[in-house]
Amino acid sequence: MSLLSALSIVCGLMLHVCFSADYTRYTVPRKTVPLQNEQKLFREEGIFNYSTMLMREDLGVMLLGAREAIYALDINNISLRKAAVYWRVTEEKQRECMYKGKQAEVECRNYIRTLHTLNDTTMYVCGTNAFSPTCDYLTFANGQLRLEGKQEEGKGKCPFDPFQRYSSLMVGSDLYSATSINFLGSEPVVLRSSNLALRTEFKSSWLSEPNFVYMDFVGESFDSPDGDDDKVYMFFSENAMEYDFYSKVAVSRVARVCKGDMGGQRTLQRKWTSFLKARLDCSFPEPSLPPIVQDVFLLKHKDWRKSVFYAVFTPQSSLSQVSAVCAYSMSAIRDIFNEGKFKTPVAVETSHVKWVMYTGEVPVPRPGACINNTVRKMGMNRSLDLPDKTLQFIRDRPLMDEAVRPLTGGPLLVKNGALLTRIVVDSVLALDGQRYNVMFIGTENGYIQKAVNYAEEMFIIEEIQLYENPEPISILRLSSSKGQLYAGSEFGAVQMPVSNCSRYETCVDCILARDPYCAWDFSTEQCSSVNSLSSSSKAVIQSLKEGDVSQCPQPDPVAAVDFALIPGNNIQLSCQLHSNLAQVRWRFSEQTLHSNHKYYIYSGGLLILSASKSDAGLYTCDSVERINGRTYNRTVAVYHLQLYSGPAVGDGPTPG
Amino acid sequence: MSLLSALSIVCGLMLHVCFSADYTRYTVPRKTVPLQNEQKLFREEGIFNYSTMLMREDLGVMLLGAREAIYALDINNISLRKAAVYWRVTEEKQRECMYKGKQAEVECRNYIRTLHTLNDTTMYVCGTNAFSPTCDYLTFANGQLRLEGKQEEGKGKCPFDPFQRYSSLMVGSDLYSATSINFLGSEPVVLRSSNLALRTEFKSSWLSEPNFVYMDFVGESFDSPDGDDDKVYMFFSENAMEYDFYSKVAVSRVARVCKGDMGGQRTLQRKWTSFLKARLDCSFPEPSLPPIVQDVFLLKHKDWRKSVFYAVFTPQSSLSQVSAVCAYSMSAIRDIFNEGKFKTPVAVETSHVKWVMYTGEVPVPRPGACINNTVRKMGMNRSLDLPDKTLQFIRDRPLMDEAVRPLTGGPLLVKNGALLTRIVVDSVLALDGQRYNVMFIGTENGYIQKAVNYAEEMFIIEEIQLYENPEPISILRLSSSKGQLYAGSEFGAVQMPVSNCSRYETCVDCILARDPYCAWDFSTEQCSSVNSLSSSSKAVIQSLKEGDVSQCPQPDPVAAVDFALIPGNNIQLSCQLHSNLAQVRWRFSEQTLHSNHKYYIYSGGLLILSASKSDAGLYTCDSVERINGRTYNRTVAVYHLQLYSGPAVGDGPTPG
Repeated sequence: MSLLSALSIVCGLMLHVCFSADYTRYTVPRKTVPLQNEQKLFREEGIFNYSTMLMREDLGVMLLGAREAIYALDINNISLRKAAVYWRVTEEKQRECMYKGKQAEVECRNYIRTLHTLNDTTMYVCGTNAFSPTCDYLTFANGQLRLEGKQEEGKGKCPFDPFQRYSSLMVGSDLYSATSINFLGSEPVVLRSSNLALRTEFKSSWLSEPNFVYMDFVGESFDSPDGDDDKVYMFFSENAMEYDFYSKVAVSRVARVCKGDMGGQRTLQRKWTSFLKARLDCSFPEPSLPPIVQDVFLLKHKDWRKSVFYAVFTPQSSLSQVSAVCAYSMSAIRDIFNEGKFKTPVAVETSHVKWVMYTGEVPVPRPGACINNTVRKMGMNRSLDLPDKTLQFIRDRPLMDEAVRPLTGGPLLVKNGALLTRIVVDSVLALDGQRYNVMFIGTENGYIQKAVNYAEEMFIIEEIQLYENPEPISILRLSSSKGQLYAGSEFGAVQMPVSNCSRYETCVDCILARDPYCAWDFSTEQCSSVNSLSSSSKAVIQSLKEGDVSQCPQPDPVAAVDFALIPGNNIQLSCQLHSNLAQVRWRFSEQTLHSNHKYYIYSGGLLILSASKSDAGLYTCDSVERINGRTYNRTVAVYHLQLYSGPAVGDGPTPG
Repeated sequence: MSLLSALSIVCGLMLHVCFSADYTRYTVPRKTVPLQNEQKLFREEGIFNYSTMLMREDLGVMLLGAREAIYALDINNISLRKAAVYWRVTEEKQRECMYKGKQAEVECRNYIRTLHTLNDTTMYVCGTNAFSPTCDYLTFANGQLRLEGKQEEGKGKCPFDPFQRYSSLMVGSDLYSATSINFLGSEPVVLRSSNLALRTEFKSSWLSEPNFVYMDFVGESFDSPDGDDDKVYMFFSENAMEYDFYSKVAVSRVARVCKGDMGGQRTLQRKWTSFLKARLDCSFPEPSLPPIVQDVFLLKHKDWRKSVFYAVFTPQSSLSQVSAVCAYSMSAIRDIFNEGKFKTPVAVETSHVKWVMYTGEVPVPRPGACINNTVRKMGMNRSLDLPDKTLQFIRDRPLMDEAVRPLTGGPLLVKNGALLTRIVVDSVLALDGQRYNVMFIGTENGYIQKAVNYAEEMFIIEEIQLYENPEPISILRLSSSKGQLYAGSEFGAVQMPVSNCSRYETCVDCILARDPYCAWDFSTEQCSSVNSLSSSSKAVIQSLKEGDVSQCPQPDPVAAVDFALIPGNNIQLSCQLHSNLAQVRWRFSEQTLHSNHKYYIYSGGLLILSASKSDAGLYTCDSVERINGRTYNRTVAVYHLQLYSGPAVGDGPTPG
């Protein structure tokens, strides 16, 4: 009985901890894929913080920014380094930084945080440079990476603090950046560095201790009937001004500015006249403090109105371990900014302020709007022409009254356990001619969750381990054309394909995986990538929404493995299920077994304790998986236990 | 290797779940005491919901109210039933209740919720009576329990809904109750049923969807220099009115009324003129929604000003599993009610209201104050004499501006895992002449946490399992004089002693337990209850704050157990530590062992995999426990592994 007692001691103690919370409400990945041996990994000894990436498919490289190094890696295999350039802090800079109270070996280094394309061969790059942000030009030509050494001022373009969240974007030759503009990190700014530099007003109603996470460009001027302008959207969290609570509360925001903004003439001189923000709602099923946006991905559509922002949220309080993904339609965000009501501060009893819906008259042109045909007809062609009352209004009221609601009313995905950190989304054309949006979500313990929403049901196809040690994924990039995903962390960069259909060896496995990238090909008898199928392939099936395996051939019966029964010994029969969503069922002579004093059923198999003669016979291990309310059973292993009559032996033999 | 693989499969899967959260910040009980065989338990077949208790130490019984039954149990051993009386709903009542949409077999029954002492032999008892609350008189005489059958109206005295939280208190012959007064549970009330019945105003600023959890009496008139009145304090949670958030937020409150209150003459006629409430603060170290008060215990002091309320809080959101205990001094609560500022509602933009600190002039006499000498000197001897402006003020402003802060600034105890449900506190006189307040806290999985605070350090002496199945403890009572604790749940009532010193067998065990009830007696060589020591006992030690074992005799060296080593076998050496706070250390020939391919160290012992000749020798298992920054090592087991040269055997032998 020693094995049982050992198991029960270990389990007993863990169960005590494990099952105090209820995990059943949360999405569980169907398959857990452990670290692969043939992984494409890049890291260099002594270099850390691989957290900035720039995809240059045109040059065949992925540019990777780390601490004091920039690499050009083969985009098809990032473990192949094509070039590298190092940008170290000078001793003087490091000393200065140290004198100001920062840690020499950690903070007073140069962390590459900005990498943008300027033209065919040139990139713009910024680093924290020992709390003295600096930018430079980087060329990749003739297989060489070269820094031009221009040492431009990086204040406002790149954070001082290497660990502060930050976002930036290059539009043409204009750099949009959202960060802190001072050493202490106390002066947040959304800045456009261009011939006509623009920035946010330094007012807590504009930005209050923000954490910027994402920025993207939407070409709304394209085909616009009302002559609208292009816009830059940004996502961040900040202290709520609209709530009144017993402690500070953070909220998530989306904000936008117009590309053509030139600031005001008298009011809002060299400041955005088009900075508008709204709360992002992603309510959990449970009451909680507002969840905090951590990363966003814009899934672009040809018609920009149909583009969708996917956002990852984590709890504001570390008491909770529940993350979520919410999706927002471009048009819902646009409607709130273009047509929504504003919030306005109201003084209460001299010392308090309450933000309520503004119900008074809104000036014309509408505050915060871009210059469009209607405004031009009024004789105003630039934001410089806007009247003071429009500008004063928006200066004091940048917050919209209404929050942006998720596309689906609530979270697309709610997950307990390791927090989600980053997201990218791929739009996949499946055999049925439909597109499915597959989300790849990085976690704080180095996994990727690959998830898809089938008719309101969230399904995590796989969770894939990317790092040997549990380290947070700090950047995630997708090359949809290459079918590759690139992730970065403190200790290295990793590449993985968006799918690995060969993981599924049988037709049933392939169909139950419900992976839109994969289909079962009857001609080759393989689970193959939909992309790789020749157009002539007709004997190919997928069943994404239903997971219906009825078209698969009946699997061959599992051959029984003979197994010796030595009376008095403990016998271990192993059985590994193919899915985390399946339940195991053990049968002995058609009777279903349950854990008790005689049997111990665990995830890896069945233990028969102190076996006796009467235990001889046929044991069957079935996997029972529910898909869409239907149950699918299949036999995974069969053992034939036969009384052993040979000489005495030590430990009982164990198969598998 | 089969054992290791089984262990690692089980552990691996669990660790994945278990160690995603960080449990180290939370208090861990030093000892886990599993269910005892000789437990004193009371339950009757077919009877459920043992949730009301009345201690009658004068009659030698504990009165226990359940669903449709009341028992008189021997207070020294509740498994001995002295009498019982059944109070079932009539078929007609049950039918009526069912017609109104309630579940016949669950809700339409009579749950005893109220049990109070009226005089030497008579109790007042109320039950939900199929959503038609009814009260009666109960006598215990000549070993018989008898209901008088008076069937008094129970509306407002007892809830309609058997599962709604509720609190009541008998003061003389006046019943104070806090519950809902209507079938729907939508009209909350704090009621005094007496010759002059008084109740709360039905206004959401007074009570907004409250959950009443506790009520107690404080005799503040005793020795009062300013002729103050006695008071009834009550604890509950309700919807916050002072916050403005994106969803409803509940807050915890303490409120009080004056015993002598008679209502107002015109304003607040037959309503409390002294109902004041304040927010209870028990801030977790993490940002979160306000935690919710679940139970309170008043640790009374001779000088009522030094009495302390102990309160259990659980999270508002089920996303979190972190409970806390906060303590509040009577005088802090009194100061806020007697001298604090009020909150006042301010209209904002017609449709909003914001509650802010009232800064205007406060009428005299002070609104909400009891009638005291100063007021009497003004010619007002009863609340009926109070002027309208005082009464109108308090009718509209029952909430104090300031929250009551915990005695120690923050929680006394923060615990992750199964939620805390109920609390009682015992003041224990230790050998050093000091009193220590020992908390007994029930949990939702049927355990009692026995905890004490030593110089700002929270220490959970033991967690004791009271129920075989994990069921929530719904009531907890203490008889300090008997040294007994009584707990109730859905399925039964259980009694346990406040301490069981004999659990600790050696001097070192006894001292390290740091239990103020227990001391090591050198004369008897036993860990004994401090109460049971004869006053002449001098050779007795305790070391509560330090856990210093230096006065204990050096323990005898642990005898080595001989153990046969059969090459190729797995060998399991067991070693059970005495404390959850201790780490295990295994040594082999003075080298410390670690888990690797050869050794597997788990909480129950050491596994040597596929042993070989060179593994022969001496193995020592040490317990390493940190107390107050000091480390205490002791050897728990020693094994002498010797090469076995006898005939071949099956499973390896296993000690312990």
